[in-house]
Amino acid sequence: MTVRTDTLSNGFTVVTEHMPGLQSASLGVWVNAGGRHERLPQNGIAHFLEHMAFKGTKTRSSLQIAEAIENVGGYINAYTSRELTAYYARVLQQDVPLALDVISDILLNPVFDPAEIEVERGVILQEIGQSLDTPDDVIFDWLQEAAYPDQAMGRTILGPAERVSTFGRGDLAGFVAEHYRPDRMILAAAGAVDHDTILREAESLFGDLERGAAPMIETARFQGGERREIKGLEQVHFALALESPGYSDDAVYTSQIFATAFGGGMSSRLFQEAREKRGLCYTIYAQAGAYADTGMTTIYAGTGAEQIAGLAELTIDELRRAADDMSQAEVARARAQLKAGMLMGLESPSSRAERLARMMAIWGRVPSLEETVEKIDDVSPQKVRALASELVSGAPALAIYGPADNAPDIDAIRTRLAA
Amino acid sequence: MTVRTDTLSNGFTVVTEHMPGLQSASLGVWVNAGGRHERLPQNGIAHFLEHMAFKGTKTRSSLQIAEAIENVGGYINAYTSRELTAYYARVLQQDVPLALDVISDILLNPVFDPAEIEVERGVILQEIGQSLDTPDDVIFDWLQEAAYPDQAMGRTILGPAERVSTFGRGDLAGFVAEHYRPDRMILAAAGAVDHDTILREAESLFGDLERGAAPMIETARFQGGERREIKGLEQVHFALALESPGYSDDAVYTSQIFATAFGGGMSSRLFQEAREKRGLCYTIYAQAGAYADTGMTTIYAGTGAEQIAGLAELTIDELRRAADDMSQAEVARARAQLKAGMLMGLESPSSRAERLARMMAIWGRVPSLEETVEKIDDVSPQKVRALASELVSGAPALAIYGPADNAPDIDAIRTRLAA
Repeated sequence: MTVRTDTLSNGFTVVTEHMPGLQSASLGVWVNAGGRHERLPQNGIAHFLEHMAFKGTKTRSSLQIAEAIENVGGYINAYTSRELTAYYARVLQQDVPLALDVISDILLNPVFDPAEIEVERGVILQEIGQSLDTPDDVIFDWLQEAAYPDQAMGRTILGPAERVSTFGRGDLAGFVAEHYRPDRMILAAAGAVDHDTILREAESLFGDLERGAAPMIETARFQGGERREIKGLEQVHFALALESPGYSDDAVYTSQIFATAFGGGMSSRLFQEAREKRGLCYTIYAQAGAYADTGMTTIYAGTGAEQIAGLAELTIDELRRAADDMSQAEVARARAQLKAGMLMGLESPSSRAERLARMMAIWGRVPSLEETVEKIDDVSPQKVRALASELVSGAPALAIYGPADNAPDIDAIRTRLAA
Repeated sequence: MTVRTDTLSNGFTVVTEHMPGLQSASLGVWVNAGGRHERLPQNGIAHFLEHMAFKGTKTRSSLQIAEAIENVGGYINAYTSRELTAYYARVLQQDVPLALDVISDILLNPVFDPAEIEVERGVILQEIGQSLDTPDDVIFDWLQEAAYPDQAMGRTILGPAERVSTFGRGDLAGFVAEHYRPDRMILAAAGAVDHDTILREAESLFGDLERGAAPMIETARFQGGERREIKGLEQVHFALALESPGYSDDAVYTSQIFATAFGGGMSSRLFQEAREKRGLCYTIYAQAGAYADTGMTTIYAGTGAEQIAGLAELTIDELRRAADDMSQAEVARARAQLKAGMLMGLESPSSRAERLARMMAIWGRVPSLEETVEKIDDVSPQKVRALASELVSGAPALAIYGPADNAPDIDAIRTRLAA
């Protein structure tokens, strides 16, 4: 398999990987614009814009956009994260040019019809309602807010209903003008694709876009803190975050190994201690999240009102113990999990296109698998223990939701971490 | 790609499909035992058993089971449905024999240590709590109960906390003795696998199991009815089910086409009418579920307290309209979606192994893609409209959860369906 990359004269990047034997392809455009690029009054606009892309272009109605892709059995969707908005499709080989045409159309030619904006506002307000009914969504929004208070990085992707209620056509067009620029877009395609054909089409579809000024991005400062709400749910939802490396730092591999060994699988410490030995919870895990300039290692568990105090203490104690004695065997296992997981993930064209886009966005190039494997192999138990020590000595962010009268507060967490 | 099947003398089935170019494989054992095989006092035991499989065998502790697979970077998991329990793993090519050994061990040699049963009971009670905090889970459990009242098919997979609190070692062993028999097990593997090697290993691992008596299965009777609860959520969760063909009936392809055209994608009628034109909801879809002897076509939407009445009416009116005028173009598009979706899904070894197992469980053979495509192409607009007429004239099942004072009750739904 061969990765090929090209950049148009306006900065628009094309990256493809042909995967032999496949009859389908996954392709999309990843735009370097998301929640963290919003000023406070704009909170929710990147996501609103993602919705409006599907609501009509100069030449296609909302129905025609959907029909164009679904008539050939394909699938089109989009997502907004804190750093990116992605528009992507999965189609059979012969429909790649069609998919590219539709994706470019919804990205470049949305009309923002005022009546459609009103309809879509209703949809997004329902999406916000659905999110608020899902404790798993709520707790991570709160954790983000506790970690990065009063910063774009700490705000929700969907935005609050009050702000979403105010957005109009000018707000959408303004965000597009500021952020939807060719030097901040990456077209990634994997599967049954031909690089030269895609490059030619990209040139014709995106070649005339004009570069924009580099946007101001507020550097994220992980501060820590707490958000909690007592509510009559079945479970207490508990999430704890500690600052860890961003993805521009190779130490991010250490935090991935740490999160895997600490709470990434059935053999991990958290799973074994909290679930397998004590039966305190069904869902418990750790994961290493990373942004350009910062990252957060997160632990989540759902448990009962009777169990939360013990579970929180166990989590903190295990964090401190990991800093002391995370072993060679555990680190070796986590390395194997990361490497095999990467290999297996790359057998899917969707995961592969996603990886191509992210690598280009982060490093401006796609590291070979061998290079990534080398970096994973370079993570030693010493590095993992040192990282765990740093995590433990950092300022924690805490989110708690549910029947949480017995849950420790942030001061108790800080004290136990420092003990 | 070639499907190969063999059956051991005790009825244990082996089905594999080699996928060239892959470095990994997905494999598992699908046991024809699930929620619908439970007698009332057993409700939840199939799922409890699935959990206990990971809690220790004669030669491996819970930790050793997890380590065996995760040391090589693999992944192991299981699920319980109403008709099946599946234990499966994803591993790199060279680790297929190891994965097979672990899967056979947890299936055939669980020890059901009483102390481990107590610990796992705690885990499952937390899983039940998590499910109850998730309106999306609650609503489908209720819908199932409304559709199949007082039947095994209508009960939850997890079981109620009161019953789960009573299960002991004898209950688990009894369910195994009754249902975990070789003639009800299918080993399916796809990806970088060699049929002859897997067959040889299957013979040595599963060849000595003794056949069991065919279990009594209660025929499912879709009756319809209602379950609702007013609760102070953000959204009203609305789910409606109508009886449709089971998977042993080729008419199941008609119900799949119907569900796709009616509410299966962005171009579907429900999505266009309720979301794109009116902005009444974020999530809305229809799907065709099928069991051996029955099926249910389900519509789900999450909406606001102000919107629920209109959304419910629109859904019923669209059902009736579909029976009149579902068009050739819509059916053709749904056919393309099903066929392309199948092709694209089969590029993943996990989906492919799952398909192999299900086809063998349903028909005792794996139909070729061409045969399935032919059946999909055989679905005409006439057949779809006729099916929609039958759905509309059937007894509906309804589940409602949330701030639902304005939601229609089952009588109002029945009346409007029949209007």
